[in-house]
Amino acid sequence: MEVIEAPEFNYLDGAEDGGGGGGMEELATEKEAEESHRQDSVSLLTFILLLTLTILTIWLFKHRRVRFLHETGLAMIYGLLVGVILRYGIPSTSYHNKTPPSCSLKEGPVSTLLLNVSGKFFEYTLKGEINSREIHNVEQNDMLRKVTFDPEVFFNILLPPIIFHAGYSLKKRHFFRNLGSILTYAFLGTAISCFVIGNLMYGVVKLMQVVGQLTDKFYYTDCLFFGAIISATDPVTVLAIFNELHADVDLYALLFGESVMNDAVAIVLSSSIVAYQPAGVNTHTFDASAFFKSVGIFLGIFSGSFAMGAVTGVVTALISFQYILHCFPLLETALFFLMSWSTFLLAEACGFTGVVAVLFCGITQAHYTYNNLSEESTKRTKQLFEVLHFLAENFIFSYMGLALFTFQNHVFSPIFIVGAFIAIFIGRASNIYPLSFLLNLGRRHKIGGNFQHMMMFAGLRGAMAFALAIRDTATYARQMMFTTTLLIVFFTVWVFGGGTTPMLSCLHVRSGKLILISHWVEALQCTVNHTTIVQVIKTHNTSDLYFFCFRVGVDPDQDLQPCGDSFQTKQESAWLFRLWYTFDHNYLKPILTHSGPPLTTTLPVCCGPLAHCLTSPQAYENSEQLRDADSDLILTDGDLTLTYGDTAITANGASSSSGPKGLNGKRNGSTSEEALERELDTREQELLSRGTRLVFPIEDHA
Amino acid sequence: MEVIEAPEFNYLDGAEDGGGGGGMEELATEKEAEESHRQDSVSLLTFILLLTLTILTIWLFKHRRVRFLHETGLAMIYGLLVGVILRYGIPSTSYHNKTPPSCSLKEGPVSTLLLNVSGKFFEYTLKGEINSREIHNVEQNDMLRKVTFDPEVFFNILLPPIIFHAGYSLKKRHFFRNLGSILTYAFLGTAISCFVIGNLMYGVVKLMQVVGQLTDKFYYTDCLFFGAIISATDPVTVLAIFNELHADVDLYALLFGESVMNDAVAIVLSSSIVAYQPAGVNTHTFDASAFFKSVGIFLGIFSGSFAMGAVTGVVTALISFQYILHCFPLLETALFFLMSWSTFLLAEACGFTGVVAVLFCGITQAHYTYNNLSEESTKRTKQLFEVLHFLAENFIFSYMGLALFTFQNHVFSPIFIVGAFIAIFIGRASNIYPLSFLLNLGRRHKIGGNFQHMMMFAGLRGAMAFALAIRDTATYARQMMFTTTLLIVFFTVWVFGGGTTPMLSCLHVRSGKLILISHWVEALQCTVNHTTIVQVIKTHNTSDLYFFCFRVGVDPDQDLQPCGDSFQTKQESAWLFRLWYTFDHNYLKPILTHSGPPLTTTLPVCCGPLAHCLTSPQAYENSEQLRDADSDLILTDGDLTLTYGDTAITANGASSSSGPKGLNGKRNGSTSEEALERELDTREQELLSRGTRLVFPIEDHA
Repeated sequence: MEVIEAPEFNYLDGAEDGGGGGGMEELATEKEAEESHRQDSVSLLTFILLLTLTILTIWLFKHRRVRFLHETGLAMIYGLLVGVILRYGIPSTSYHNKTPPSCSLKEGPVSTLLLNVSGKFFEYTLKGEINSREIHNVEQNDMLRKVTFDPEVFFNILLPPIIFHAGYSLKKRHFFRNLGSILTYAFLGTAISCFVIGNLMYGVVKLMQVVGQLTDKFYYTDCLFFGAIISATDPVTVLAIFNELHADVDLYALLFGESVMNDAVAIVLSSSIVAYQPAGVNTHTFDASAFFKSVGIFLGIFSGSFAMGAVTGVVTALISFQYILHCFPLLETALFFLMSWSTFLLAEACGFTGVVAVLFCGITQAHYTYNNLSEESTKRTKQLFEVLHFLAENFIFSYMGLALFTFQNHVFSPIFIVGAFIAIFIGRASNIYPLSFLLNLGRRHKIGGNFQHMMMFAGLRGAMAFALAIRDTATYARQMMFTTTLLIVFFTVWVFGGGTTPMLSCLHVRSGKLILISHWVEALQCTVNHTTIVQVIKTHNTSDLYFFCFRVGVDPDQDLQPCGDSFQTKQESAWLFRLWYTFDHNYLKPILTHSGPPLTTTLPVCCGPLAHCLTSPQAYENSEQLRDADSDLILTDGDLTLTYGDTAITANGASSSSGPKGLNGKRNGSTSEEALERELDTREQELLSRGTRLVFPIEDHA
Repeated sequence: MEVIEAPEFNYLDGAEDGGGGGGMEELATEKEAEESHRQDSVSLLTFILLLTLTILTIWLFKHRRVRFLHETGLAMIYGLLVGVILRYGIPSTSYHNKTPPSCSLKEGPVSTLLLNVSGKFFEYTLKGEINSREIHNVEQNDMLRKVTFDPEVFFNILLPPIIFHAGYSLKKRHFFRNLGSILTYAFLGTAISCFVIGNLMYGVVKLMQVVGQLTDKFYYTDCLFFGAIISATDPVTVLAIFNELHADVDLYALLFGESVMNDAVAIVLSSSIVAYQPAGVNTHTFDASAFFKSVGIFLGIFSGSFAMGAVTGVVTALISFQYILHCFPLLETALFFLMSWSTFLLAEACGFTGVVAVLFCGITQAHYTYNNLSEESTKRTKQLFEVLHFLAENFIFSYMGLALFTFQNHVFSPIFIVGAFIAIFIGRASNIYPLSFLLNLGRRHKIGGNFQHMMMFAGLRGAMAFALAIRDTATYARQMMFTTTLLIVFFTVWVFGGGTTPMLSCLHVRSGKLILISHWVEALQCTVNHTTIVQVIKTHNTSDLYFFCFRVGVDPDQDLQPCGDSFQTKQESAWLFRLWYTFDHNYLKPILTHSGPPLTTTLPVCCGPLAHCLTSPQAYENSEQLRDADSDLILTDGDLTLTYGDTAITANGASSSSGPKGLNGKRNGSTSEEALERELDTREQELLSRGTRLVFPIEDHA
């Protein structure tokens, strides 16, 4: 097909001079602008085709149950391949190979520069410093430069949906039950890891200086900075596999909570370290006052961001509490999206950390606002953020693959790289094992040895480490860090990510019962022929499965809803959790959502009028419903209802198409959902104590 | 609350010099970068708060049934207010008021400039030309500059989802039935309008030169360009109201089709006009060869873009045809999104027009791919694009409001503005009335006088006119056009948009029966108490309503599904439509989707083996189902089933909660849906011929 020469507008406004003189010149600039626009499109298209390819391969992998390589690892491989093609396969696309004109100034670089061309003024903005050896390549590497994104894009556009989704899809109950341990690992653990890695790397740097491998400056603060950025573990790969295999929920909560929180810790830690560098003076040695200033800044930024996220979440909950937008799910979803996004910007505008704010905003939204949304909006918001998160994540990982070949200032230093690999293992170990030992002193539910090994193994580095490393690649030290970070991400995602499934089996963390269920769910989702499932149910011992109700197509947190009869809270919950739970359940939930008990029953009698004023009529209805639900949920042994779409399959093999009704169709308030979740655990215990292990024949295929 | 001084990284890489000399300088640049980042966040936050405010007010308006101002008009008003505050309310936020340093070059402006500061090189990119009187204000208007977006953002990020959504939500049958008329209005009509406006404006410009009001050059091609950009009518406001009031479907199809297609025509027309300017020479007079070149370019670009959009749509349909992604709705949705977005980029990369390609891609996706998606994905994709479209649209309109005060180079020329207002009315009139007269000669279904007046009245200008005008504001002429376009958009959206409801009543375009239904749907969506509806049904004469089944929460195109018994195609369909319909139904649909008859029945016998090979097993099943559905759909008078969520309400007043079953629950292939739609029209005719007009008491509130 012949490509038609499309007339394009002047993309650079200034390039036109009103039709006066200099027509040929104008034409050249116009052509250049056109070419630049086309290259922009091509580079974006490259990424989109990369993502498309990744999606199709992911499908193939899921279809064939391949678990040795996760989608993120796959995205990186495709990224690498395209990077190689861009770097070595495409001839220089530049239309002129000359060095761009330059002019001299005595002052330091300014952000805005004016260019005077025969009386006309043009404005230029600073793009960055160029290595003097690169000057002649500026125009030559057009395509490579085009596929290089502004690091701000990662922070302001790609990370927020990922982090928000992490907070929004948090398994609240397990998270809060292990809150103490999670915070210990995330705060203390990350700090330990940062300092251990920082100090080890300082030794490595000293060694490099002795050997003569280091050609530029590398300060102690640089080492600490590296420790901070590389301490952020990534939840993506391991947890996706955990989710698929339905591994232990407490381990899941620990790992997920830690990796989500330590992202936040690492970002604040790294900026505190930058602030620690004594301003103006370039000593880069230890200074007590600067150190305490850093700690103060750390605490200030973290708590400020936390507060900001929580406040925006609460405001959204209060707006949605009024039910005013219930008739308009589109408006509700849009409002929800905008409020969450504005949290990020508000925090950044105030000088806090947007990522931390958006994480806590997500948690608050999931805890309160979610209950106030209309049924359609809850689905919409979940799905919207799911898609955004999926796209952003795969984009970042394929970009990482690409960056290995397209980034122009890589500094590969073998000693530094080997040193960094050793340092991150030691750093991770000195985070997990000592802290687990300390935590086990206080925990009723001990963190077992296999859990500790699994947590050690699951210390993957991913998007956050990359984003922090690429944010500043101006100096030699930072470029070396960036290259090393990239290699560490590749290694951990491919090796540790791929090894998760065998490691889980090896450490006996998988739960057989749940494997069975996962296979059922898969069967339910992919088999159109219901009779197969009915057959399966009939041929297996179903009397032990009486308490599971499935709702296919709902998120895993809701998928496994046991139908039990008792509502008492577990006694082994941490005191921190219990304290918070009581306060939240009695006061915050009734004020911010329509679920939970009416305030009139929880507040002291003296606050009667206030309680009456704040309690919505729905709360009374809810408390009635709760009592009803109580009796509804008692199931006799042998009862089993699986709903698939509109068709209900009962355990006796009869398949009726009467639609979801009874147990699953009804949407009980979140309080009862929580109770149901709790019930699941009790049942789990029961089952394990009875020693029943149900494994399907399908298991052999995995 | 005290704002903590957050340490930020160097956003401008080049600003750091490796810890060597110049510490203070470095610090200053760092502070500047920090300030710049904060301002970026604030300006984005401004827009997001604007959108939030708009959403809350939209809710209020929808709640109170205010129809004199549409949400887009509202967004503009808020934008205006914020623009006034930014312009006059905020003192200069700049931290230094000096003119930035400048340097001189003899050559024309280049896209990349190097700056040599004591041996270190920094790269600068061209931002645009600056008016010599503005030089000293460059730094002063920081905030105003921050809220000014790159016009490319409108074209590459905001317009594609709007246009795609337009194509995706097209009411296919009514669109295709009126295809001939729509194409006539869109192509011929827009060209007429463009030339009429262009010539009138040339007269106005000549007048201005005589009066001495014109200070710079203004060519004939500029006038034609203005004619092209201002000829693009906007579907947004009028059609939203049409949708709410359920106005005549054919008028809706005509208006929607015209406004969607003429966006595409205007964008190609305007670029052809730019290409028409004889390159290098600045004659700007009529040149036959250049004219025919323009026409050739127009046809080439349009057909190329059309082909590209259709091809990508077909490829997506073929991928989804394999049902491979059915188990993974997330992957399916992501793939759908990426393929649609890549159409845009692919077209831009090849030099075609992305907007046109994405429009036809949307139509193809809706026609074929939509049928192949899993039920969850169909919902997801619809909702995803709905949210994106909603946000993008409101963003553009509030940005328009803002731009009136924040754009720095407005040229208000009273004569030009008044002339333009008169010209667009004459242009619109010379498009609608003569073409309607010609079309009526060939149409069986005449376009009535009231329809013509309504089409004349509905010629609102919106997002596309604005986006085209802001794309290039470098010259005096273009600045004057931009200002005028902005004012025309304001006027038409507020006055014509607000006047739509009274105009519809005045011209008797509203259909009483459908008003009734719209009120019912509203009642169903917002009333939790079902007995009210049952009461309403009981108290009114329901025997005339036997043929409507509602599915609340589905798009309006599917909402009104009649349950009829006959399947014959309407005889008054246009021949173009019938030709296309037969080909599409017999060959394309069976190849690309699982609906439609099996190929074995439609292809000639000689192609037997090929047909067998291409026909999926589902197609046979479908044809069986179709026959079943046929008999299912026969309803006796008096039967009425309204489903609301999981509750079915039957006309006899009994409310059962057995879930959607039978008629509505079953998702018949699109062929039967089309047949159902067709049936609706027949019934409409019947009802009107019987003279029954059912109007609810609720009507009085409107």
